[in-house]
Amino acid sequence: MVRRVAVVGGGSSGLACIKSCLDEGLQPVCFESSDDLGGLWRFKENPEPDRASIYHSVIINTSKEMMCFSDFPIPAHYPNYMHNSLVMDYFRMYADHFQLTKHIRFNTRVLQIKQRSDFSQSGQWDVETENKEGKKEKHIFDAVMISIGHHCHPNLPIQDFPGIDTFTGKYFHSRDYKTPEEWRDKKVVVIGIGNSGGDIAVELSRVTKQLCLSTRRGAWILNRVGDNGLPLDLSFNRVLNMLRSILPFNVFCGIGEGRLNNRFDHGLYNLKPKHRLFSQHPTLNDELPNRILSGTVQVKPNIRRFQGSNIEFDDGSVMEDVDLVVFATGYRFSFPFLSSQVTTVSDNKASLYKYVFPPELQRPTLAIIGLVQPLGAIMPVSEMQARWSTRVFKGCSKLPSMDNMLKDIQNKEETMAKRYVSSQRHTIQVDYVSYMDEIAELVGVRPSIPRLLLTDPKIGLNVLLGPCTPYQYRLRGPGKWAGARQAILSQWERVARPMQTRPCQEPEPSRSFLGPIVVAATVGVAAYFNRDRLPALLQDPTELWNHIKAHLPAL
Amino acid sequence: MVRRVAVVGGGSSGLACIKSCLDEGLQPVCFESSDDLGGLWRFKENPEPDRASIYHSVIINTSKEMMCFSDFPIPAHYPNYMHNSLVMDYFRMYADHFQLTKHIRFNTRVLQIKQRSDFSQSGQWDVETENKEGKKEKHIFDAVMISIGHHCHPNLPIQDFPGIDTFTGKYFHSRDYKTPEEWRDKKVVVIGIGNSGGDIAVELSRVTKQLCLSTRRGAWILNRVGDNGLPLDLSFNRVLNMLRSILPFNVFCGIGEGRLNNRFDHGLYNLKPKHRLFSQHPTLNDELPNRILSGTVQVKPNIRRFQGSNIEFDDGSVMEDVDLVVFATGYRFSFPFLSSQVTTVSDNKASLYKYVFPPELQRPTLAIIGLVQPLGAIMPVSEMQARWSTRVFKGCSKLPSMDNMLKDIQNKEETMAKRYVSSQRHTIQVDYVSYMDEIAELVGVRPSIPRLLLTDPKIGLNVLLGPCTPYQYRLRGPGKWAGARQAILSQWERVARPMQTRPCQEPEPSRSFLGPIVVAATVGVAAYFNRDRLPALLQDPTELWNHIKAHLPAL
Repeated sequence: MVRRVAVVGGGSSGLACIKSCLDEGLQPVCFESSDDLGGLWRFKENPEPDRASIYHSVIINTSKEMMCFSDFPIPAHYPNYMHNSLVMDYFRMYADHFQLTKHIRFNTRVLQIKQRSDFSQSGQWDVETENKEGKKEKHIFDAVMISIGHHCHPNLPIQDFPGIDTFTGKYFHSRDYKTPEEWRDKKVVVIGIGNSGGDIAVELSRVTKQLCLSTRRGAWILNRVGDNGLPLDLSFNRVLNMLRSILPFNVFCGIGEGRLNNRFDHGLYNLKPKHRLFSQHPTLNDELPNRILSGTVQVKPNIRRFQGSNIEFDDGSVMEDVDLVVFATGYRFSFPFLSSQVTTVSDNKASLYKYVFPPELQRPTLAIIGLVQPLGAIMPVSEMQARWSTRVFKGCSKLPSMDNMLKDIQNKEETMAKRYVSSQRHTIQVDYVSYMDEIAELVGVRPSIPRLLLTDPKIGLNVLLGPCTPYQYRLRGPGKWAGARQAILSQWERVARPMQTRPCQEPEPSRSFLGPIVVAATVGVAAYFNRDRLPALLQDPTELWNHIKAHLPAL
Repeated sequence: MVRRVAVVGGGSSGLACIKSCLDEGLQPVCFESSDDLGGLWRFKENPEPDRASIYHSVIINTSKEMMCFSDFPIPAHYPNYMHNSLVMDYFRMYADHFQLTKHIRFNTRVLQIKQRSDFSQSGQWDVETENKEGKKEKHIFDAVMISIGHHCHPNLPIQDFPGIDTFTGKYFHSRDYKTPEEWRDKKVVVIGIGNSGGDIAVELSRVTKQLCLSTRRGAWILNRVGDNGLPLDLSFNRVLNMLRSILPFNVFCGIGEGRLNNRFDHGLYNLKPKHRLFSQHPTLNDELPNRILSGTVQVKPNIRRFQGSNIEFDDGSVMEDVDLVVFATGYRFSFPFLSSQVTTVSDNKASLYKYVFPPELQRPTLAIIGLVQPLGAIMPVSEMQARWSTRVFKGCSKLPSMDNMLKDIQNKEETMAKRYVSSQRHTIQVDYVSYMDEIAELVGVRPSIPRLLLTDPKIGLNVLLGPCTPYQYRLRGPGKWAGARQAILSQWERVARPMQTRPCQEPEPSRSFLGPIVVAATVGVAAYFNRDRLPALLQDPTELWNHIKAHLPAL
């Protein structure tokens, strides 16, 4: 029987692993190679090898109600989009509250994880670790959870850039970027329009003499600040998710793209990609349009070649006297401490059942946690994976046969290949609501909406029409949390609270909250019944509300 | 007969004065107290007394097609919203092109401007100047144009802040703010939510430990990036202006406020003021919502008192250990070199006929240029005033009787008092299109739309439905410019050009340009005929276009 579980990595996913082990009566031992918890989110002035590193100003791009662990809401007064220092504060609170820290061995690196000789019976693992002083240790564990994230190794494809060896300026990967001051009045090129590339380009552009943002494909740009000023991700709910699965992909993308183009015309701004909105991991950047319109960020195509201090782009234009190139070209992940027998990674592809379990092990006692890139927050996803894994370790939840797992993996790969731009950025994409529901079903904690609507319609409506906050997965089943109901009912209050720093003359909270719930949640239903009027309906909460009342009598 | 004209100040308004004098065959002599042209727009690391001063990152908040002089479009490749250094470049180009600089005497301060003893006959002025070396000179001029702007003297109302003498932190006026670096990890309060206050708060918030933005009244916040990513001010056109005058004030404000609340709910963000949208000079700030939602800018009410390093706000909340307070509390203007006989200023109120002519002079040979705060760009307004003034100087345009001028002034004051929040910020407000048309009528250059629609429908439609760009006032009459027609027809091309820095796969220029023209221009017409569907129509260019075609058969 599984008792002792090794957790590799003490970042946000690692914390969720420890917590899930404790909830399930297992004994976690977490090995963290640095001297503190938080992983990616811990700002360090000097990046360390094989470890993620963030810049000073990083603000998370998922909002607090969507990114929290499901039984530990973020304090009401915390802002909706948190600076990295506040994200760290939250993780510390979480660790303190559930007394997780005592299960972490800091400054301890995992060297090797190997199946024991009796693995087919015991499912046990030999784990070798090394501490800061170089002292090695061997341990035996009943199960292993690997939660090292996927931002370990910077992807620096300099081989794709002819002449880079002649470049007289400086270049580095985005992980080595910290603050902009050093680059005042300099000329900088940022390569890549992902979230880091966009953020860094915008930040540098406030001080640089010239800043070019080079992108091969272009991108659809989303805003953190959504309609009515609410966090955008609060609108990714069950109705929208239903709509996504009902509507043809191109139609669904078209609606979204139309809305993005209302903010700014991606064609006019020369950012419009060939691919559709949901074929790429989204870039969130509220400030980029303004920077482009003011010419402080210039969008450029791919770099053709470096030549001394000059850079030539694919359109033949040349930028002279470039001082710095930032490669915001993403990360690669790997599991150097795992033998290739267990799982292999090539081109950021790992073959894992539902992104968690290596399908070919004789016993399901090893889980990879947090190796997903959701269209949404990663913390609740890691937590859900951890809840599932511990149930699997204990035998409370069974995995299908190896064949069926391999088939499922293949299906997912094919679906992904159809939908996404082929890129090592898009190997671990999941849709937040669908994936959460999929795993929650396996754990037995997926909320039953029809039942809720009958037994507790207030919650039922919130779960159906409101944002798909993680508390929904604590309403029932293993790990049920008594506070979940109240957490859902008070979620809008926690959205508004941090902004109540000035008494406003005529507060209109009811309208502020009803509107967005309805707008966000019922786009789908209204659209379904009234396709031709969609663009108009998308703007009018009252009309939408009337529609939903008319077409969903059950509500 | 008027020949020699003194121009006081070599900023943007001064340049327009020199140019207008030359166009009308007058001899301008411009006295500029500093060593260069550009006035407000010339960035200086160290602010000088009695002179405007800007911070390093200032980007103008009117777009290039709306802010340019009417016969000198800004180069196509310049960005739509220009950094202050580019604004300066443009002014230099303008000065070079029309050879204005040789008419400027730099380092020469005007000490006194007095009516000559035979003023009632000659209309002449004694002008005393002093150069850098302290050498004084006396001149006689036939007319005087005062173009010193209204950002001379910082308004620093410290008497309104009890306990400020006990404050242990630093404080200064926004004019003394240059760059944020110094305030990294400090705690800062910015007072005032005008354009400077908003910009500085946002910029500082990227480095500070805590930033509070204190506002007594709150504000409606507009974006530079308007619908579809076009510069917002391109939508302030004749149809919108017509709508403003037709619709009840509250209805018109309500429509605008609804659209602003779609961006972010001003109530939820606790920024909502008691007053209506068009009762206050607008604050443009694209980034403030994001900063508030991320808690990096906290909106606070007015300051109740300072106490050592602490600041107590009106709601009783206290911010401790404050390092810096920035007073973004605006400017006062005055004309110390003019005797009170000519005109007086108290509480930023000057009694001037159409904001230009002191009504009580026996001869109309003195004009104040640029003493307005338009809902739009100031440069074309100054230029129009200069064109009018020089025509008046020459006797080609007559002023009404003193009584009628005083009545007009009083009427305008009453209208303003009804509409605007009572504040020394709102003493010189004008609506761009109305005011331009009003002065243009006097000069004889107001475009006649019915005639244009008949004789040159392409231009007619552009003038009616397109943005009210300054070129419209060069189509006919004195100062007619042969390039005006082409400048109007190519204005959208100049909007798009600076962003064409990356070849885009599927450019859609026709849609990009038709949509916005129609959306922006015909809101009014469509609304008028279809009030109940307004919110929907505002989102749908095609439907709007159909409406305008149906309801305006003349087009």
